[in-house]
Amino acid sequence: MLSPSPNSTKKAFSRVAIVGKFHADGIDEHLKDLAKLVKSLGCEVFLEAATAQHLGLKEFPTKTAEDFAGAIDLVVVLGGDGTMLGIGRQLAGSNVPLVGINMGRLGYMTDIPIQSVQDTLPKIIAGEYEADTRTLLDAVVLRKGKEINRALALNDVVVNRSGISGMVELAVHVNGSFMYNQRSDGLIVSTPTGSTAYALSAGGPILHPRVAGILLAPIAPHSLSNRPIVLPEDSVTIIEVVDGREVIVNFDMQSQTDLQTGDKIEVRQSEKTITLLHPRSHSDYKTLREKLHWNEYPSTF
Amino acid sequence: MLSPSPNSTKKAFSRVAIVGKFHADGIDEHLKDLAKLVKSLGCEVFLEAATAQHLGLKEFPTKTAEDFAGAIDLVVVLGGDGTMLGIGRQLAGSNVPLVGINMGRLGYMTDIPIQSVQDTLPKIIAGEYEADTRTLLDAVVLRKGKEINRALALNDVVVNRSGISGMVELAVHVNGSFMYNQRSDGLIVSTPTGSTAYALSAGGPILHPRVAGILLAPIAPHSLSNRPIVLPEDSVTIIEVVDGREVIVNFDMQSQTDLQTGDKIEVRQSEKTITLLHPRSHSDYKTLREKLHWNEYPSTF
Amino acid sequence: MLSPSPNSTKKAFSRVAIVGKFHADGIDEHLKDLAKLVKSLGCEVFLEAATAQHLGLKEFPTKTAEDFAGAIDLVVVLGGDGTMLGIGRQLAGSNVPLVGINMGRLGYMTDIPIQSVQDTLPKIIAGEYEADTRTLLDAVVLRKGKEINRALALNDVVVNRSGISGMVELAVHVNGSFMYNQRSDGLIVSTPTGSTAYALSAGGPILHPRVAGILLAPIAPHSLSNRPIVLPEDSVTIIEVVDGREVIVNFDMQSQTDLQTGDKIEVRQSEKTITLLHPRSHSDYKTLREKLHWNEYPSTF
Amino acid sequence: MLSPSPNSTKKAFSRVAIVGKFHADGIDEHLKDLAKLVKSLGCEVFLEAATAQHLGLKEFPTKTAEDFAGAIDLVVVLGGDGTMLGIGRQLAGSNVPLVGINMGRLGYMTDIPIQSVQDTLPKIIAGEYEADTRTLLDAVVLRKGKEINRALALNDVVVNRSGISGMVELAVHVNGSFMYNQRSDGLIVSTPTGSTAYALSAGGPILHPRVAGILLAPIAPHSLSNRPIVLPEDSVTIIEVVDGREVIVNFDMQSQTDLQTGDKIEVRQSEKTITLLHPRSHSDYKTLREKLHWNEYPSTF
Repeated sequence: MLSPSPNSTKKAFSRVAIVGKFHADGIDEHLKDLAKLVKSLGCEVFLEAATAQHLGLKEFPTKTAEDFAGAIDLVVVLGGDGTMLGIGRQLAGSNVPLVGINMGRLGYMTDIPIQSVQDTLPKIIAGEYEADTRTLLDAVVLRKGKEINRALALNDVVVNRSGISGMVELAVHVNGSFMYNQRSDGLIVSTPTGSTAYALSAGGPILHPRVAGILLAPIAPHSLSNRPIVLPEDSVTIIEVVDGREVIVNFDMQSQTDLQTGDKIEVRQSEKTITLLHPRSHSDYKTLREKLHWNEYPSTF
Repeated sequence: MLSPSPNSTKKAFSRVAIVGKFHADGIDEHLKDLAKLVKSLGCEVFLEAATAQHLGLKEFPTKTAEDFAGAIDLVVVLGGDGTMLGIGRQLAGSNVPLVGINMGRLGYMTDIPIQSVQDTLPKIIAGEYEADTRTLLDAVVLRKGKEINRALALNDVVVNRSGISGMVELAVHVNGSFMYNQRSDGLIVSTPTGSTAYALSAGGPILHPRVAGILLAPIAPHSLSNRPIVLPEDSVTIIEVVDGREVIVNFDMQSQTDLQTGDKIEVRQSEKTITLLHPRSHSDYKTLREKLHWNEYPSTF
Repeated sequence: MLSPSPNSTKKAFSRVAIVGKFHADGIDEHLKDLAKLVKSLGCEVFLEAATAQHLGLKEFPTKTAEDFAGAIDLVVVLGGDGTMLGIGRQLAGSNVPLVGINMGRLGYMTDIPIQSVQDTLPKIIAGEYEADTRTLLDAVVLRKGKEINRALALNDVVVNRSGISGMVELAVHVNGSFMYNQRSDGLIVSTPTGSTAYALSAGGPILHPRVAGILLAPIAPHSLSNRPIVLPEDSVTIIEVVDGREVIVNFDMQSQTDLQTGDKIEVRQSEKTITLLHPRSHSDYKTLREKLHWNEYPSTF
Repeated sequence: MLSPSPNSTKKAFSRVAIVGKFHADGIDEHLKDLAKLVKSLGCEVFLEAATAQHLGLKEFPTKTAEDFAGAIDLVVVLGGDGTMLGIGRQLAGSNVPLVGINMGRLGYMTDIPIQSVQDTLPKIIAGEYEADTRTLLDAVVLRKGKEINRALALNDVVVNRSGISGMVELAVHVNGSFMYNQRSDGLIVSTPTGSTAYALSAGGPILHPRVAGILLAPIAPHSLSNRPIVLPEDSVTIIEVVDGREVIVNFDMQSQTDLQTGDKIEVRQSEKTITLLHPRSHSDYKTLREKLHWNEYPSTF
């Protein structure tokens, strides 16, 4: 490959961090190649510190994710959507955009295959990209009126029963109005980003990333007419645990809090967002088609 | 009943039309009572001309719905949501708000029971109300590039197969991007208002009326992963008939156009809206709870 | 009430036990009335021992449920379907039929309202009834090939994730054929009786009690085409835990076993059945209509 | 290919007919190859008359499908499940088994790829096969009590609205018991064979071919709790058209009858069956996995 000349290249981003904190065969080689590619474009390159330590990579300077804001112009994530969720929450509100590279299995957020990175990443770094802003949820857990936890979620806030109790009963209010008491396995409050994750398995609709809305999707509700509902983005949803043993709230399935009867979870859209960058040819519908096997017909018709 | 004194009453609306074009036992008496009530509030009262003719009511001046804009300040609809759909489309963009009165069976839009009208209507006319703006869809039917029909829809634009053909195949593009080829019984493009109508039966989510989005809900799609999808309100959806005999597009199930292979239906959010007025105590969630039997548990748990 | 004369009454059942082990206001009075009614019919009456102890009822002889087989001809259950599940499993294979009485809330199995018991129970005891045989599932839990638990289920055998792990991966074989690896919240193996319980909430179909089949219903499966499937009654389903932390199998949600990766649950239809007795006027469809609010239309149509 | 010697081959079937009545590039060559293969096995070979005429094949003797019973021992079908449905209904009750060969796209009934036919067909003709008996539905259409049509269906009997009417209302009785009045797009009565066809798109479960049951699956029902229900195989379902314009009943989507209000369709399991033959290695679950993309995970998890 003939690399572009560092000096002559127009750059939209100068300081680039690379994250790839997960386990996958060959990821260290891919990370090194990525770092070299970015460097060849004239950028300053850092490995996220935990990534470097985890993989024993010592060839590049490192920086912890907490220090990215202000010191980094672009974060390149190598991995799956799970990796993106973690770093995304950390960067919320920082104005540092993210690019997602997958290692073969297309992700909704990690949409660039590693094989095409030599083509696409230079263009993105040169400023040829589509920006895609994603909202987050801000959840406060209240016990007897006092905040006991607060967390952001890029996909979803999920209140659900544990395995040993038969169900959970939740009382749901939206903007001060009582919505319903729901007996179910749990309730998912999801961003548009999360609508293609757990909420989809639970029977929810897909929300295009630009829809200004929050999705409530019940999990196996006892009442058969308890359907998924999309709320305006300014809605404040309060979920109270009315009944159920070992009830739990989790955030992007990556952290959680044990709940007691009477606990309330107040969920609203965060003022913070993150921005994903895609190649100009990006189509959300193409990703959906490929991931959901649309146009492949299972039936006899 | 002690009627309020016409002269002393503060009024937000002076010229009120009443619509009730449908068949139901006793509707003529209810319409007369309604008209008298509104008159007793100091308003000028008109019966919608077709309503008056249909029911043989001659006691009140009449006005055709086409003449409401500019001449009427408020329209009171007595009937079900179907009646509301028809008059709603006619008033789209006119700035004349609507109040919906039901005769016993709660409607999503006709939310005031006739029994409580003596309490609620005077307050609304006095200016104590909640305004609820509803979007409409604007659909253009194109054959060989030429517009052959154009219609508004308050609930939905539905492209579907007729009874005798096994299925329809539709190619769907959104904002110029190909979404999918879908084989199914049809495709529903729905406003938030329509999300509790046919789209709900087809497996779609509920969209709160204030959600700025357009719902695509497939009807019995062959591909099991073809899920309902919510698009941003500025989306232009083009549905092309690829295959299928006797394919039809209908608008609020109240008018329709026969389609041929190659025809395209271009659907976008209309610039026109309508405004519903509710009593201050109104809650969309209460209506949903009542209509969908939420909190009534069918199972053994 | 004029009681029938004990001596002259034709009886299909002579020794009757009454079960009502649950907490509900006024249940003790109802149980006493029931016992007197049955006695007045010329039957020997026993209270189930735990019921009598729980409620402090000392007026009647008692018998433990383990001793019912051979000593009791009919068991009358006062309560909900949950009470029925517990005693039903205990009586499986005993040839002692059950009658279910509810205290106001119709159950699928406890279909006789307490208010009508004076009419219906004498007829049933006189031999005027419809017999309704229900199948059970027999589940063996295997760890490294050794049986670590075995249980019957009248509703369902459910393998599911606990609250803290994101999902469970299960490998499912039926009669030695690989069916699929499923990633989900869990998998329900259900009898027709259980098809109106948890499986229905998870999206499963209703199976008429006389259908000779076993239902597999996935809970929030990641693969959108993982649909409920009905297997022939002679099918042996083996579910292996491939991945997931804190996975649990439960039986009728009334007992459970913690699982480890590699554990297998082998589920087949039990050779044992139970028999419910209904009044001659009984209709399963009437119960379904009432419990599921069929014929009450939520939509605008 | 070294063909087996005709005389020395053990044969379970001597007189073989080949059917391939559909349009597909290259089907004539495949049919000739098939015929030669079967002949080389020592069998007498006939082309189904309409197939031969349609494709202009004159090299082989022909026989009409009506004459197969008694004159043919085995029918080999080249095509898709649609072709199989048509010939299957004609052979119902004839004791002539069918083998289904597909031309690249796996079918539920046409499960043998043309590429492997040289391996699998000789074995089947030699008697090495798995027999798979399929039930059919027998539907009688009654107008004012008189039979106006009667038809068999291998997949399903579907009562549905046409495109121009908003819905159909149907009253459903099973074995003389009222089940419900249903407002919907229609109702599917399906065999286990049909459960993977239209009923699956409408939200129905999969029924293993050996399940002794009949599936009722509503299409877009207004009542959200109107779920698919599986009835015992001896059930007689009567569907009465209560309301709806241009209602139609169709049989396997291959023939149909226009209905009027008051018409009744009486559906029961036919006494006739058909038998499919599969290679010994056949697994229904493998076909389901492949056709429904099981084990391919669309989500971010």
